[in-house]
Amino acid sequence: MSVLIRGGVVVNADGETRADVLCEKGRIVAVGTGLAAGADTEVIDAGGQYVMPGGIDPHTHMQLPFMGTVTADDFFTGTAAGLAGGTTTIMDFVIPSPQESLMGAFKKWRGWAEQACSDYTFHVAVTWWDESVHADMGTLVNQHGVNSFKHFMAYKNAIMADDEILVKSFRRALELGAVPTVHAENGELVFQLQQELLQAGVTGPQAHPLSRPPVVETEAVQRAIAIANVMNTPLYIVHVSCAESVEAIALARSRGQRVFGEALAGHLVIDDSVYTHPDFDFAAGHVMSPPFRSKAHQAALWNGLQAGSLHTTATDHCTFCAAQKATGRDDFTRIPNGCGGVEDRMSVIWDTGVNGGRLTPSEFVKVTSANVAQIFNMYPRKGVIAVGADADVVVWDPEATRTISARTQHARGGFNVFEGRVVRGNPSHTVSNGKVVYAQGDLRAVKGAGRYVERKPFGPIFDALQRKRQSAA
Amino acid sequence: MSVLIRGGVVVNADGETRADVLCEKGRIVAVGTGLAAGADTEVIDAGGQYVMPGGIDPHTHMQLPFMGTVTADDFFTGTAAGLAGGTTTIMDFVIPSPQESLMGAFKKWRGWAEQACSDYTFHVAVTWWDESVHADMGTLVNQHGVNSFKHFMAYKNAIMADDEILVKSFRRALELGAVPTVHAENGELVFQLQQELLQAGVTGPQAHPLSRPPVVETEAVQRAIAIANVMNTPLYIVHVSCAESVEAIALARSRGQRVFGEALAGHLVIDDSVYTHPDFDFAAGHVMSPPFRSKAHQAALWNGLQAGSLHTTATDHCTFCAAQKATGRDDFTRIPNGCGGVEDRMSVIWDTGVNGGRLTPSEFVKVTSANVAQIFNMYPRKGVIAVGADADVVVWDPEATRTISARTQHARGGFNVFEGRVVRGNPSHTVSNGKVVYAQGDLRAVKGAGRYVERKPFGPIFDALQRKRQSAA
Amino acid sequence: MSVLIRGGVVVNADGETRADVLCEKGRIVAVGTGLAAGADTEVIDAGGQYVMPGGIDPHTHMQLPFMGTVTADDFFTGTAAGLAGGTTTIMDFVIPSPQESLMGAFKKWRGWAEQACSDYTFHVAVTWWDESVHADMGTLVNQHGVNSFKHFMAYKNAIMADDEILVKSFRRALELGAVPTVHAENGELVFQLQQELLQAGVTGPQAHPLSRPPVVETEAVQRAIAIANVMNTPLYIVHVSCAESVEAIALARSRGQRVFGEALAGHLVIDDSVYTHPDFDFAAGHVMSPPFRSKAHQAALWNGLQAGSLHTTATDHCTFCAAQKATGRDDFTRIPNGCGGVEDRMSVIWDTGVNGGRLTPSEFVKVTSANVAQIFNMYPRKGVIAVGADADVVVWDPEATRTISARTQHARGGFNVFEGRVVRGNPSHTVSNGKVVYAQGDLRAVKGAGRYVERKPFGPIFDALQRKRQSAA
Amino acid sequence: MSVLIRGGVVVNADGETRADVLCEKGRIVAVGTGLAAGADTEVIDAGGQYVMPGGIDPHTHMQLPFMGTVTADDFFTGTAAGLAGGTTTIMDFVIPSPQESLMGAFKKWRGWAEQACSDYTFHVAVTWWDESVHADMGTLVNQHGVNSFKHFMAYKNAIMADDEILVKSFRRALELGAVPTVHAENGELVFQLQQELLQAGVTGPQAHPLSRPPVVETEAVQRAIAIANVMNTPLYIVHVSCAESVEAIALARSRGQRVFGEALAGHLVIDDSVYTHPDFDFAAGHVMSPPFRSKAHQAALWNGLQAGSLHTTATDHCTFCAAQKATGRDDFTRIPNGCGGVEDRMSVIWDTGVNGGRLTPSEFVKVTSANVAQIFNMYPRKGVIAVGADADVVVWDPEATRTISARTQHARGGFNVFEGRVVRGNPSHTVSNGKVVYAQGDLRAVKGAGRYVERKPFGPIFDALQRKRQSAA
Repeated sequence: MSVLIRGGVVVNADGETRADVLCEKGRIVAVGTGLAAGADTEVIDAGGQYVMPGGIDPHTHMQLPFMGTVTADDFFTGTAAGLAGGTTTIMDFVIPSPQESLMGAFKKWRGWAEQACSDYTFHVAVTWWDESVHADMGTLVNQHGVNSFKHFMAYKNAIMADDEILVKSFRRALELGAVPTVHAENGELVFQLQQELLQAGVTGPQAHPLSRPPVVETEAVQRAIAIANVMNTPLYIVHVSCAESVEAIALARSRGQRVFGEALAGHLVIDDSVYTHPDFDFAAGHVMSPPFRSKAHQAALWNGLQAGSLHTTATDHCTFCAAQKATGRDDFTRIPNGCGGVEDRMSVIWDTGVNGGRLTPSEFVKVTSANVAQIFNMYPRKGVIAVGADADVVVWDPEATRTISARTQHARGGFNVFEGRVVRGNPSHTVSNGKVVYAQGDLRAVKGAGRYVERKPFGPIFDALQRKRQSAA
Repeated sequence: MSVLIRGGVVVNADGETRADVLCEKGRIVAVGTGLAAGADTEVIDAGGQYVMPGGIDPHTHMQLPFMGTVTADDFFTGTAAGLAGGTTTIMDFVIPSPQESLMGAFKKWRGWAEQACSDYTFHVAVTWWDESVHADMGTLVNQHGVNSFKHFMAYKNAIMADDEILVKSFRRALELGAVPTVHAENGELVFQLQQELLQAGVTGPQAHPLSRPPVVETEAVQRAIAIANVMNTPLYIVHVSCAESVEAIALARSRGQRVFGEALAGHLVIDDSVYTHPDFDFAAGHVMSPPFRSKAHQAALWNGLQAGSLHTTATDHCTFCAAQKATGRDDFTRIPNGCGGVEDRMSVIWDTGVNGGRLTPSEFVKVTSANVAQIFNMYPRKGVIAVGADADVVVWDPEATRTISARTQHARGGFNVFEGRVVRGNPSHTVSNGKVVYAQGDLRAVKGAGRYVERKPFGPIFDALQRKRQSAA
Repeated sequence: MSVLIRGGVVVNADGETRADVLCEKGRIVAVGTGLAAGADTEVIDAGGQYVMPGGIDPHTHMQLPFMGTVTADDFFTGTAAGLAGGTTTIMDFVIPSPQESLMGAFKKWRGWAEQACSDYTFHVAVTWWDESVHADMGTLVNQHGVNSFKHFMAYKNAIMADDEILVKSFRRALELGAVPTVHAENGELVFQLQQELLQAGVTGPQAHPLSRPPVVETEAVQRAIAIANVMNTPLYIVHVSCAESVEAIALARSRGQRVFGEALAGHLVIDDSVYTHPDFDFAAGHVMSPPFRSKAHQAALWNGLQAGSLHTTATDHCTFCAAQKATGRDDFTRIPNGCGGVEDRMSVIWDTGVNGGRLTPSEFVKVTSANVAQIFNMYPRKGVIAVGADADVVVWDPEATRTISARTQHARGGFNVFEGRVVRGNPSHTVSNGKVVYAQGDLRAVKGAGRYVERKPFGPIFDALQRKRQSAA
Repeated sequence: MSVLIRGGVVVNADGETRADVLCEKGRIVAVGTGLAAGADTEVIDAGGQYVMPGGIDPHTHMQLPFMGTVTADDFFTGTAAGLAGGTTTIMDFVIPSPQESLMGAFKKWRGWAEQACSDYTFHVAVTWWDESVHADMGTLVNQHGVNSFKHFMAYKNAIMADDEILVKSFRRALELGAVPTVHAENGELVFQLQQELLQAGVTGPQAHPLSRPPVVETEAVQRAIAIANVMNTPLYIVHVSCAESVEAIALARSRGQRVFGEALAGHLVIDDSVYTHPDFDFAAGHVMSPPFRSKAHQAALWNGLQAGSLHTTATDHCTFCAAQKATGRDDFTRIPNGCGGVEDRMSVIWDTGVNGGRLTPSEFVKVTSANVAQIFNMYPRKGVIAVGADADVVVWDPEATRTISARTQHARGGFNVFEGRVVRGNPSHTVSNGKVVYAQGDLRAVKGAGRYVERKPFGPIFDALQRKRQSAA
């Protein structure tokens, strides 16, 4: 059984070309004009459409135990929603509790993920430190295909990593050829602001952004950059949400550091007015960290993507239903943090990015798949339409219009931060692992069809980092 | 007759892979492992070597009439020198005198270039303005494959374009889908400083950098960026030489502009101490504009290339012999401006860039060929090792060491700004238009074998620029 | 006849202190506690009020022939309005037409100004260049108390100074110890945008800001800074209106240049929505250059004043009545540029600046008088409450509230850009040249009572500039 | 007994004027021309000299117990050295050990300081936190004249304040109207680098700067600024040593924050080549934190002082003799950190700053006394030559030349980081508390003559901070 995508314009990070794409046994086996369909070939007519690498969402949380509950989407519903939106790989997070073994947590998450219907892989969080953590990092890299570690600079009294943990973990990551990543918010300041707001009687969702102003994020961005600088590591910063953070990344890059930034689809188009909405469910439904920002920050994020100061787009997909969110009705600090998006990222970014002239189609591919694949060393298996690559492909109809809504989405949780948004540019077909899993509204997700993607350490920039240190010495 | 490059590591802008490369009839026809050689196939053993797109030098001046003389290298010797160094395409400049017809000048240069032994193409300079210039720009773009126009912001009383010319030409370029480029130095300030230095009796080459300090360049960079901003055009800035200019470009990009910057191999490694050398011939041999800068600026240029604020590397190859340089013995303003480099760019940039950990091999490809090809819309014909691309390939021996010297170079002029520099990383073979033209020191350049490369207008970013303007309105 | 201001808090640039102030014969003769009033002494009760140096407005145009008409306020009505608002000195502009003798123009303006009721002085504009201009600059500085020259970088085909004029005039100013000042807008870009807008049929006042976007200003700011850098002169930039310009000034200062910036009261509080008002008279009434900007720029201007990147506040007072503005009803480029404000600057800046916590009272004095006096070398004759200073004093009631309106203003023109604004903090009394000229709404302006203030060249920073150049050499 | 300083040029922060200065009973009682000397008046001939406010050194450590020893200078010898160099007030530090009562430490230091021969005052360090610290801060401010608190972000496992302490102490300082100050270096990174260097066998003084690169400082500067931003406090950063930190301060100020920076005389003129000197005593004699930097940073510090991004100059005077330094002969982390300078600051800054054209004489007064007095609310008692101010005056001979040397200094420790430097511009006389304590080389310091200076809380900017927060809400 093979799939032939015929008559479209193939878009890769480096350009566009009219070509057919033939997929067999899970791989792309031919890209060219006039490719012939065999007997057993499913043919997709891509006329007038773009043919692009399937999206990679580098930041999701399926089936996450968090703040005393578990997210609404599990690995099956979450990856299925992704396929419906043109995303064929997710990068999720293994998050051990402090004192919990990294290997133990990793195995737990691997088990949960077996029901995924698209490919997936894991960042592993370092939330505490001792010799076992040091050892497990090595085991994960050398035996289990992990090449990135996550650090939460927020969430004091929970999973926050202080400077000592950051320093030790970054040093270890460098030895192993793995990329350190950070959630950048100063947890001490967030905690202080939360307490002051609660004491002042400001307890509703409107307090959420007040407790996490941009400066709280930028401080942590700058600190993580400084630590990466001293430790000579690369650095990947998740969900960069504000102008000052983009500037900090650009400045670090202009001084020779290898820093990468990720923007969320939500931060790119939603502003902080949602938090003052009178309906608690609506406001609480938007509670995530960092919070949505004022409109001026959105322009900065788009410019960052265009200029190359930001590199990837993600969703931080982490869905909770209204009943879960209601836990924090009287205390905003108890509202579970998280929003969805894995299903809508590609369309939202195309609609505002490409239709708005902020990105070329090739740049769209860069920021929705190719850059992620390169940074986390999955390229050219993922992130490109080329012979030999995994047959993860989205056929994109630039004229198809859709109104985003929780009522029609495949993801769970009953809420959608993009509710009512009309997006032009949507997938007509999604091919995952060589199979047509979504076609014109028909989602054919198969539980357990997804594979765990092992990623090798020592991606291309590690050699350069090493040479640079040597030539500096 | 075909060429098979066997056993190397193919390096493209997006990554490295071990593969053979087969070239036939001037094109790359296969990239893969285990490719077989036919009877008529010349086989190159690339074991232990990199196989990369041939270099594109976006800035050369062969056979240029300038400051009352003509450069030492003509299109044959200049392109031959390029081939010896792994550069398989040059972008030269048609420079009409004020009041001279653009079409007339274009035809003159086309004639001179017919003896080139590698492919070539032309930027055309706009040095004056009237209706005929407006019309000729259209003819050049629509009938002659020109998609970039050059503007000199320096050289008052000669070819300097004032703001009125810049505004009109940028506006016209946008209509035509062509990229405006600028030599950014404020000609009025240079003129004033030259006069003051001469009046103060400072007449030797040491006055040259004093008459063109970084601020003179940065002013013009900022002005060109502002004009491009208002006119909604892309902008390509040639030979960016100082930190402040890189910062200005990065700032413009961070605000959403499509600005591209070029760095010269010379500016990346040579500092301004050369101008105070007691030997006039040595000092004058380094006179070019902008001049070489202090060492701190070199780091900024490298960081700019790494961070994506600078995009291409060039040479401004423009050779004069000692007798020509001597014209300015008593008046530095009369020293013909120009240095060589087309033969050494690739090695110099590899040696300092890749060996020094500033660039990965893929980034080396970006800044030596792929980015030029994309910006000036020659991609994927040029700038990539892929099926269908022109068979312009360099086989790169990363361990080969060479001492650069005017005594051994192929370029004319008898001088080399990199004299004595030992570079590790050199071409073992160069393939141009499907033929082996350089092999282990044996240069097989054929006069007239080079082709004029037509470049289509409206490269990928023009559509985005148009959408952006529409969505802003 | 003397005046004793009793019981207030004296505010100078360096701090506040409770003290009485005694004025005799036009000078301040005592500052201290418990000062006794003589027989012939008018006593002002300043209890609960601040006693501050009278405002200096460094940028007014009284009785200006401009765009085919003459401004509504002459030197009497304009300075009278200033006194009513607490401003006791204006710096106006002598603007020779191209080819008009500087000395001739200067004498003409001196004649017009004789009816002023407060002190005044003149910047002189350099709008063209020949040997007579060079000579007249010397005469003005050495014999007529001029120490600043103005250059318009906008107004192509009228009074625009190109780079050649700027370079020559800045060089001459340095020799003379005078400060170059610029109106920073790129006239070529403004002209082009005006033509394009008119051709597109956009002819109303809403086109005005579109023809002068921030980048047009910032380009000129950066260019003037570059020229001042190369010429080693100080630089004063009038009416800085946008964030990017403030950043450019801050950057230049951080690199060691002596650059000063002026903000207009209007730019600090009025935004560009005024230009889309349906009433032509209202919209046209706000037409001035640079235009009012979006709100984000206002914050940048306030921060610039607070941080020391901007130094003075002014008004560009230049009033036209509705009939005059109507000249441009069908062509926005023909609307006379200019707005009023000399009467309201102090109150507007106090209300938003001090009441809003952006400025301390001492910083208010810095930006309304002291800094101007220092930059233009009138200090400590002007700009400070100290023994020996001119008795130009404003007694400031921080609780007095006033609604600004054209109906109640003293200035002519029948329009006020601050119409309807309620300001808390207003003068209760103004003392000019030792006489009470305004008291609780009673304006006692005397035509011709104002004096021309001669300003010496070579203010304090010129010596430092000279030493710096010497130590660099 | 009074002192009349006759015939000099009085320099204040706001300008220069020729005037005599009469001091009686510890105060300045007259400033004017032609002042008459009484019978009991000591007359100083200041012809050809400047008369300036005595220097205030805002950063000294006399008699400090540190790293297991005590500094060589006690309060008598340290303040005596200051008087010899024209410094008439020092701000020293009370540094409680963790768990030590703030009040207890304060009383201990007050006792030590009673032998001082010039005026002095204290910053108090917050090195730990509990309710007693919170309470003692209040007592110190409200009953003991303390209005500034110091926080060490370095010195892990000793006196380092983590983010929690910073947040709580900044919050408390704001309530009390006191200024938080920080020693900005990331202690965790320093610790890590120290361990790595020692493990690599790099144990000598050359390791000291390697363990504290600029980024380690800038990280902490940015973090302290962020915390001050969120807490709405002013911030004073001691010993800013590198370009990136100056930029961070300038950026914060450009965004509306009240941040002040201090530069040390040593950092302004000494570079890091001292640490590779083969003589251990010489290299170790320069060990202080932050370390001396490369020359490029010096220019940034000078520009910061000129531009108003840095505000004060200090010395961090903290002297150790060679035997004390030798403790760290085999382990650079055990070399007591500290250098002298209180005696030489004024001359070093005048010589490089004023003679080099970087500062005007008035700017010299700003950065050596007036700004300190204003920031820490001692103005106009200190920091100005005016009637009513303390009679702390330095008579400055701009032509007097001196070669700095440990052999001739008054400070103890037997070492001088400015050894051999020839400075032009030195005090001829110092007047402290109305008495001539230094005259032409004759030091007349009187043990115990110095007074403790109480400083009131809620300096001028606190009201503005409060208004700003209110108007933002």
